[in-house]
Amino acid sequence: MKALVYLGPGKKALQERPKPVLGAATDAIVRITKTTICGTDLHILKGDVPSCEPGRILGHEGVGIIDQVGPAVTTFRPGQPVLISCISSCGICVYCRRLMYSHCLTGGWILGNRIDGTQAEFARIPYADTSLYLIPEGADEEALVMLSDVLPTGFECGVLNGRVQPGSTVAIVGAGPIGLAALLTAQFFSPAEIIMVDVDSERLVIATRFGATAVINSAGSDALEAIMKRTDGRGVDTAIEAVGIPQTFELCEKVLAPGGVLANVGVHGTKVDLHLESLWDRNITITTRLVDTVSTPMLLNTVRSRKLDAKRLVTHRFRLDRIHDAYEAFAHAADTRALKVIIEA
Amino acid sequence: MKALVYLGPGKKALQERPKPVLGAATDAIVRITKTTICGTDLHILKGDVPSCEPGRILGHEGVGIIDQVGPAVTTFRPGQPVLISCISSCGICVYCRRLMYSHCLTGGWILGNRIDGTQAEFARIPYADTSLYLIPEGADEEALVMLSDVLPTGFECGVLNGRVQPGSTVAIVGAGPIGLAALLTAQFFSPAEIIMVDVDSERLVIATRFGATAVINSAGSDALEAIMKRTDGRGVDTAIEAVGIPQTFELCEKVLAPGGVLANVGVHGTKVDLHLESLWDRNITITTRLVDTVSTPMLLNTVRSRKLDAKRLVTHRFRLDRIHDAYEAFAHAADTRALKVIIEA
Amino acid sequence: MKALVYLGPGKKALQERPKPVLGAATDAIVRITKTTICGTDLHILKGDVPSCEPGRILGHEGVGIIDQVGPAVTTFRPGQPVLISCISSCGICVYCRRLMYSHCLTGGWILGNRIDGTQAEFARIPYADTSLYLIPEGADEEALVMLSDVLPTGFECGVLNGRVQPGSTVAIVGAGPIGLAALLTAQFFSPAEIIMVDVDSERLVIATRFGATAVINSAGSDALEAIMKRTDGRGVDTAIEAVGIPQTFELCEKVLAPGGVLANVGVHGTKVDLHLESLWDRNITITTRLVDTVSTPMLLNTVRSRKLDAKRLVTHRFRLDRIHDAYEAFAHAADTRALKVIIEA
Amino acid sequence: MKALVYLGPGKKALQERPKPVLGAATDAIVRITKTTICGTDLHILKGDVPSCEPGRILGHEGVGIIDQVGPAVTTFRPGQPVLISCISSCGICVYCRRLMYSHCLTGGWILGNRIDGTQAEFARIPYADTSLYLIPEGADEEALVMLSDVLPTGFECGVLNGRVQPGSTVAIVGAGPIGLAALLTAQFFSPAEIIMVDVDSERLVIATRFGATAVINSAGSDALEAIMKRTDGRGVDTAIEAVGIPQTFELCEKVLAPGGVLANVGVHGTKVDLHLESLWDRNITITTRLVDTVSTPMLLNTVRSRKLDAKRLVTHRFRLDRIHDAYEAFAHAADTRALKVIIEA
Repeated sequence: MKALVYLGPGKKALQERPKPVLGAATDAIVRITKTTICGTDLHILKGDVPSCEPGRILGHEGVGIIDQVGPAVTTFRPGQPVLISCISSCGICVYCRRLMYSHCLTGGWILGNRIDGTQAEFARIPYADTSLYLIPEGADEEALVMLSDVLPTGFECGVLNGRVQPGSTVAIVGAGPIGLAALLTAQFFSPAEIIMVDVDSERLVIATRFGATAVINSAGSDALEAIMKRTDGRGVDTAIEAVGIPQTFELCEKVLAPGGVLANVGVHGTKVDLHLESLWDRNITITTRLVDTVSTPMLLNTVRSRKLDAKRLVTHRFRLDRIHDAYEAFAHAADTRALKVIIEA
Repeated sequence: MKALVYLGPGKKALQERPKPVLGAATDAIVRITKTTICGTDLHILKGDVPSCEPGRILGHEGVGIIDQVGPAVTTFRPGQPVLISCISSCGICVYCRRLMYSHCLTGGWILGNRIDGTQAEFARIPYADTSLYLIPEGADEEALVMLSDVLPTGFECGVLNGRVQPGSTVAIVGAGPIGLAALLTAQFFSPAEIIMVDVDSERLVIATRFGATAVINSAGSDALEAIMKRTDGRGVDTAIEAVGIPQTFELCEKVLAPGGVLANVGVHGTKVDLHLESLWDRNITITTRLVDTVSTPMLLNTVRSRKLDAKRLVTHRFRLDRIHDAYEAFAHAADTRALKVIIEA
Repeated sequence: MKALVYLGPGKKALQERPKPVLGAATDAIVRITKTTICGTDLHILKGDVPSCEPGRILGHEGVGIIDQVGPAVTTFRPGQPVLISCISSCGICVYCRRLMYSHCLTGGWILGNRIDGTQAEFARIPYADTSLYLIPEGADEEALVMLSDVLPTGFECGVLNGRVQPGSTVAIVGAGPIGLAALLTAQFFSPAEIIMVDVDSERLVIATRFGATAVINSAGSDALEAIMKRTDGRGVDTAIEAVGIPQTFELCEKVLAPGGVLANVGVHGTKVDLHLESLWDRNITITTRLVDTVSTPMLLNTVRSRKLDAKRLVTHRFRLDRIHDAYEAFAHAADTRALKVIIEA
Repeated sequence: MKALVYLGPGKKALQERPKPVLGAATDAIVRITKTTICGTDLHILKGDVPSCEPGRILGHEGVGIIDQVGPAVTTFRPGQPVLISCISSCGICVYCRRLMYSHCLTGGWILGNRIDGTQAEFARIPYADTSLYLIPEGADEEALVMLSDVLPTGFECGVLNGRVQPGSTVAIVGAGPIGLAALLTAQFFSPAEIIMVDVDSERLVIATRFGATAVINSAGSDALEAIMKRTDGRGVDTAIEAVGIPQTFELCEKVLAPGGVLANVGVHGTKVDLHLESLWDRNITITTRLVDTVSTPMLLNTVRSRKLDAKRLVTHRFRLDRIHDAYEAFAHAADTRALKVIIEA
């Protein structure tokens, strides 16, 4: 089968690889119909993710058709269409039993990282019963690919951790796919204000279309000042960090109202300054989270009932044999205007 | 001043009464600009509310202009437009300090009940600092009258107590003003389904317009069967009782899925059968609540930010000297199609 | 092997039965070392549990040694000592993924009910990975048998659902094993008062020894009056119903303070009167629950760290071949002073 | 009257000052019977609290007798014994109505800071109705002085924010009065382990006496290693920072298990390093809080019901005219073994 293989920092190739075979009794083999590329895939390609070794098939998102199931898989059978979660969950360990699938002792984020992933014609999915979701009849596959990772990440790490409430004020720093996923799902809770901050004007145009009530280009203005002005000097109830660098995290620290929540979503490579000298008495909460994908059933319901138009995140489409073009488009989003790119296998 | 006075069961009159004067230092006198009629006012007129004695000026909802404030009132001054909460909260007692204003030891629902109310040209409002809300600039007064009672009641007693969630399934039994208020505010949380049940087809038409995803006329069909069918036999996550009689409460008991919540909003005059023989192991929750109006600031934000179109509940308008007509319209809603009637003082 | 078999209403026999064999790949066979009898077993013997058919081996509690595991069991191996949960949880279905194991679509309370149980030398335990718990080194087996059912039931259905808090006031109606389990575990949260109500003075003596701050014999006095007096007319924050009859449930309704929680633990055979005419505006919560045993890891920690002396519930010990005597002792607790009886297999 | 006056960095004097008089209608004058010294008083004396100007009477803790009340005070009358909260709460502003009294727009921590405080024979207490608590009959005054600040601070900022649970594992870094207050109140929730860390062996002896299950002297050993070893490499569920310097905060960052909570209690003067490069995917929560004293009624209940022996924190007693000695004892705790010192006015 064809598969996109990581070959070390800066290198990847579309190779012919053997079709995966069942390993554990709880495995399933899924024929991938649609997959996509995540910012984390770019991190791997930069060599920033040591757990991902050369030779690994990339990708941790996608939908497909069950091809085979191991003898212990009870809820799926060949031929069924499924959504693949980016997080593999054994359903048994102490973390899974606390609904923290991200820290599953033998799973977590392993697809396209510690084991071969989904940017291929087939993929082996461990713990199929607890890591795949049956796709509803007649569902739009492209929309559902957004439920593998980007939407639950924005929702769980940003919106749920950020305790967005009816009538509350939210700032989302970073209008990339994850920030926009937070923007879309924050609206489940009807906040009064969602202020998007980014350095890219075109992304802010999209943010406005997606429901932001105010946008701030932090390249051309003082975002802190603009947010404080917009909130009458009060600051925001929820600040969602969706970039992953010290400057944006510290902006979030500064815009929080007393009692506010800073929900970190960004992947950080270095420490940040936490200004406890001004925050120790502000009654704030800071959260971090690797997505658990516990909200997948809820998100499937919101897609089915048209409360969430997940497909709005899809901007480009490629066939698997053009996956290098897909990476180009995704990696140069400032030029290509790409949000999420669909790859048809 | 003119005031509508309760004169005993079945009797009321628009009388000339002295303008109220400040009593406690925490009182305010409010010149009423708009008020409305509540189902509870009809209960009083039937003689069902013993705490309300003949001679009482009716009404516990409204907006107006501060006329005078007592010496201990610190947040309001004459001339300011304010929203009157149906619940008076001292802000000091053990219940107020737990945010259960409904059970304030010296307040609670006293307006138009234990003390004179708002269906008059002026009203004395106790505990002004904690029972009035400054109205935002340029706000629509009619919309805000809906925030005195009907919307916080639907929201707090029905939606918040009922733990409505994104993607969840909700049934609201009763499509009167309170049920419709629950319908409007349930949408803050983006449930997948809101099934409205009533015996009045025209109210169900309104429910559909207000966002119900399914409507069931329980006069003409088996509501239990219809709800179970609509939910693939599973039942609902939240059942909101907004009628106040045994049949509708028991319908709510029966439609609950395991783990579901029955949030009672209705005012009940008799006991109901609680079928513990089938519910003891269903992991359900039943809640009752007299509105606390703790959500008023949140609701004001949702009105200001256009997440809630409160005015949709207003169907009729009368001047104070036509208040008997207003009562007629409200009391015969099946004929008049009235939801909430605005009375301009 | 020897096993206690239900033979229809009023009939049971200690029979020789074949040792159970592995069925599903997720099964384990456990050699029972200690088991016990539950009030539910008595209900079955009365013929009150239609799902339990004649021929069934009784019992859903116990500790033992893993004898064999199915090929899909990953966390246990023969020879390991384990605690058996009274609830079988597949770990996969929509209810298990919401931590409502009690409503597992293919599990729940099936042991000694829909499938053969633990009052035998061996038992087949479905979903071993998610329904058994490794026993800590050197643990007291008798104490741990109390963690199969009685303690998680008192804790989850009574204490957690009842939201017991530091400094709060709790009434527990029923001082049988379940009520006493609630009493022991309520103390995890340091309430100011725990008032026990029962008709048996000797049980109330035990309740005092177990930490009750007040006891009321409802046979000889007016329990409602006594509780209201003890709480200065305020009522209790939490009322835990641990009997299962209308009178005790209605007592709980009446003793609730505004804002209080009535946590039902009792198994009810008939409907009760819910006095909504006085409760509709009292801001109360009523909960029901079949134990989920989600708290088992937490309870194991509290036993290990000596925050919970689970063994205090054990009053009698029998060998398996004397299990009829054990039933006699347990069924006539008023005479025998039995709480929980240990049966050594 | 005699009063301890701050005279600028490093300077204080016991001066004769006029007895305070009622200002606002909501004020009370309290004759102080017992007060104490807080670490914050030492911060002020170092000149680290710019809001506190020379000439200010110090102190924000204490119990006393109502001497006079303003005309708007409704719940107290002269002669009643009261507990003074360190936080003044207007009960009206947006923060008070959210139970965040610490951020009261006109109150908060103002006593002995922005207005004259309690280390005097009399003190003016603003917002008496919402900032004083009637003392129960026969209560021990010394114990109750601990409820003005140190116990609610340890409890709210450390234990409640830290979500201490039955069976959970807690580390408290810092065994000063605040850390010990967290230790005492953490036991309300029956955690399995409370590991105390300090550099002072004698304080660790006290910690053991107060209920710590393990103590680590971080002067003589690697605290990180010791905590990880004690928790089998897993880390702690709750880390409470009760020192206020970068090293101890960073220790707390490192000892958190996935899903853990770091509850900051310490007063920090500089920023700290937040190691997001290792924490971004650990699903942790960090909280800060200035005490709100919302738990005062709960804590009074726990003292009254003997769940909390607040007096254990009291080590020294002085009369007001010896208050300089009290400061000496408190400031040199390593030598004097002082925890909290009582000053009798």
